[in-house]
Amino acid sequence: MISEKMQEFVKNSSAIRAMFEEGKKMAEEFGADRVYDFSLGNPNVPAPQEVEDALVDIVTHEDPLKIHGYMNNSGFDETRTAIAGHLNELYHTRFTADNLVMTSGAGGALNVILKTLLNPGDQVVTFVPYFGEYRSYVANFDGVLVESPTDSEHFYPDFAALKERLTPKTRALIINSPNNPTGAVYPEEVLVEIASILTAKEQEYGTDIYLISDEPYRDIVYGSTVVPWVTGYYHNAVVASSYSKSLSLPGERIGYLVLPDELSGAKDVMAAANVASRILGFINAPSLMQLVVARCQDAKADVAFYEQNRDDLYGALMAAGFECAPPDGAFYLWVKSPVEDEREFVKAAKEEEHILLVQGRSFGCPGWVRIAYCVSHETILNSLPGFERLAEKYQL
Amino acid sequence: MISEKMQEFVKNSSAIRAMFEEGKKMAEEFGADRVYDFSLGNPNVPAPQEVEDALVDIVTHEDPLKIHGYMNNSGFDETRTAIAGHLNELYHTRFTADNLVMTSGAGGALNVILKTLLNPGDQVVTFVPYFGEYRSYVANFDGVLVESPTDSEHFYPDFAALKERLTPKTRALIINSPNNPTGAVYPEEVLVEIASILTAKEQEYGTDIYLISDEPYRDIVYGSTVVPWVTGYYHNAVVASSYSKSLSLPGERIGYLVLPDELSGAKDVMAAANVASRILGFINAPSLMQLVVARCQDAKADVAFYEQNRDDLYGALMAAGFECAPPDGAFYLWVKSPVEDEREFVKAAKEEEHILLVQGRSFGCPGWVRIAYCVSHETILNSLPGFERLAEKYQL
Repeated sequence: MISEKMQEFVKNSSAIRAMFEEGKKMAEEFGADRVYDFSLGNPNVPAPQEVEDALVDIVTHEDPLKIHGYMNNSGFDETRTAIAGHLNELYHTRFTADNLVMTSGAGGALNVILKTLLNPGDQVVTFVPYFGEYRSYVANFDGVLVESPTDSEHFYPDFAALKERLTPKTRALIINSPNNPTGAVYPEEVLVEIASILTAKEQEYGTDIYLISDEPYRDIVYGSTVVPWVTGYYHNAVVASSYSKSLSLPGERIGYLVLPDELSGAKDVMAAANVASRILGFINAPSLMQLVVARCQDAKADVAFYEQNRDDLYGALMAAGFECAPPDGAFYLWVKSPVEDEREFVKAAKEEEHILLVQGRSFGCPGWVRIAYCVSHETILNSLPGFERLAEKYQL
Repeated sequence: MISEKMQEFVKNSSAIRAMFEEGKKMAEEFGADRVYDFSLGNPNVPAPQEVEDALVDIVTHEDPLKIHGYMNNSGFDETRTAIAGHLNELYHTRFTADNLVMTSGAGGALNVILKTLLNPGDQVVTFVPYFGEYRSYVANFDGVLVESPTDSEHFYPDFAALKERLTPKTRALIINSPNNPTGAVYPEEVLVEIASILTAKEQEYGTDIYLISDEPYRDIVYGSTVVPWVTGYYHNAVVASSYSKSLSLPGERIGYLVLPDELSGAKDVMAAANVASRILGFINAPSLMQLVVARCQDAKADVAFYEQNRDDLYGALMAAGFECAPPDGAFYLWVKSPVEDEREFVKAAKEEEHILLVQGRSFGCPGWVRIAYCVSHETILNSLPGFERLAEKYQL
């Protein structure tokens, strides 16, 4: 009854979501405080007070025809101007409203740019492990996702392997730093090397290779970690961003796409992105939330909360003998499975300890599991004895 | 630089939007009160007070983690339950939350169901004239849009022509009543006949032909006009709905898809629609607005405002000698161009009278123009002398 493509999608439907649903059922059966659900990246830090204040003020004082009405498909001028100004201040860029398209979160932004760029059969490279939805997003436009490996210590790109995977059919490289699922943050030298490789391949093939930087976690970094701004390193770089994590608004679907003037065919790309947003059915990013984020450019969700979770979880798991990627950003811990088939470990954690993890193969990387630690601190603390018993079980 | 498909889209980019942009420029040049912009379906009636009250109450009193958080991709249970209850009360149906998927407006709903159903090359029939975005939506999934004629008095379907256009490759028929751009509302006998034709063709071909009813204007009807509920007439009917017009929230992108249990493969269709919403990048309909509409099921934008506009505009244009489709619903008047090429009429109206109309060919129907009368009543009244001068010019 349903399309062939969708049959495939339904069958492979996100293991993450399935786990989330199962977690809800288990919470009903065993009690929410006895199930440790690390399956989904749903922030446990409330939106900052500025968001509530802006919402109430706008709804109470501004014209409802404006706040709930259509605007240019790219978004309200005042929102795009506010974001451009904020980026310029932070990164010494020279963006204007014209460089921005407001989108339905970073997921919407990625679909808009892929719709804009991809012809059927075009290749899109990304580094393993990666957010599993990239597969769907690239398939939406009949592109081909090409996996490129990383080192297994920091999960930074393997540059030699990247070079081999760039072909005349490569249309884009998607990077995601801070990374879901590893928590890796690419330092400047990684971006410099990526830019150098892409530039050389563009010249070799006479093509354009766009660097798509998926950055919903840019503001969630720890210690002295810095996330370099990609458009400073490469001429064909676009940024997909979101307020889902930085303002804890994942359900609101509000984000944006940055399209610098330096892009090859910048004018065409901007015009097409504007149309793409409409014809994909989004039309525009939700209007009231556009006006809210315009006023909340300096607000941030409480990163210290996630940092505390990270410190306690990472510390305890390392002490127990688990091998973990060093988590510099985002709110995920990437842990090596103590047995080769990580599904076995996920099953044991669930059944024996009521700990819900996500299998690494959902991110294109079997043998590892992801822990989303954007949960209450209590959940972290209460789960630790279970992790310790699992370490004993597997003799770590 | 951009994909081949998008080059086509950008080139043909909606004449409606182009006109809207031009209207803004003209308003700056000549003064907003001297430009009569009838180009875009942007409601001029504010959202009802219930919406503002619900927004402020929810933001002030409910848990921000809930109101801005992720939920099941289909939407909050309470929202879907409220809508199901409302529909059941109005139409004596038996829907539950499981029959509903919350979407990013009706545009999102159409993309979700088309993504769910279409294989490349599948045909989707619709009646001329039709909302031009159907072309894009069907092309998004490599479907083929097939135009089927209507009569030129009421703009009801030509049934004999419909029969000819239904083939073994027909996957769906999209109807839109109340209609954009004609204002036609299909009476019960039209739905009965459509259902009978589709049922016969399903049996003849051994296929499923889904009836997709695009209903953003269901609540905008005049006089004693009734909009029959399609799922009561045909087993394979789905409804795409929106709060854009009924609650004047077009910029918020909040709507829903109704998937009855009677659908062929109902379970598969529902599972796929859920996944489609996610992989298209929408993920879910905006969360706060979902909670708002759950509380506003009985609220309605002020239809009397549009009815006054309709009465005055329709009355004056008929008196001036224009030929108009009888407008029973939505907020569009469909007017026969006094010259064969309606683009000539659109140009004269714009240049001589600062009246902005949309060419009929944007709706697959040259020779007619659309007037969106969801504007201030003053705009209607002040535009009438211009329409009268145009009638004189063309000797109507």
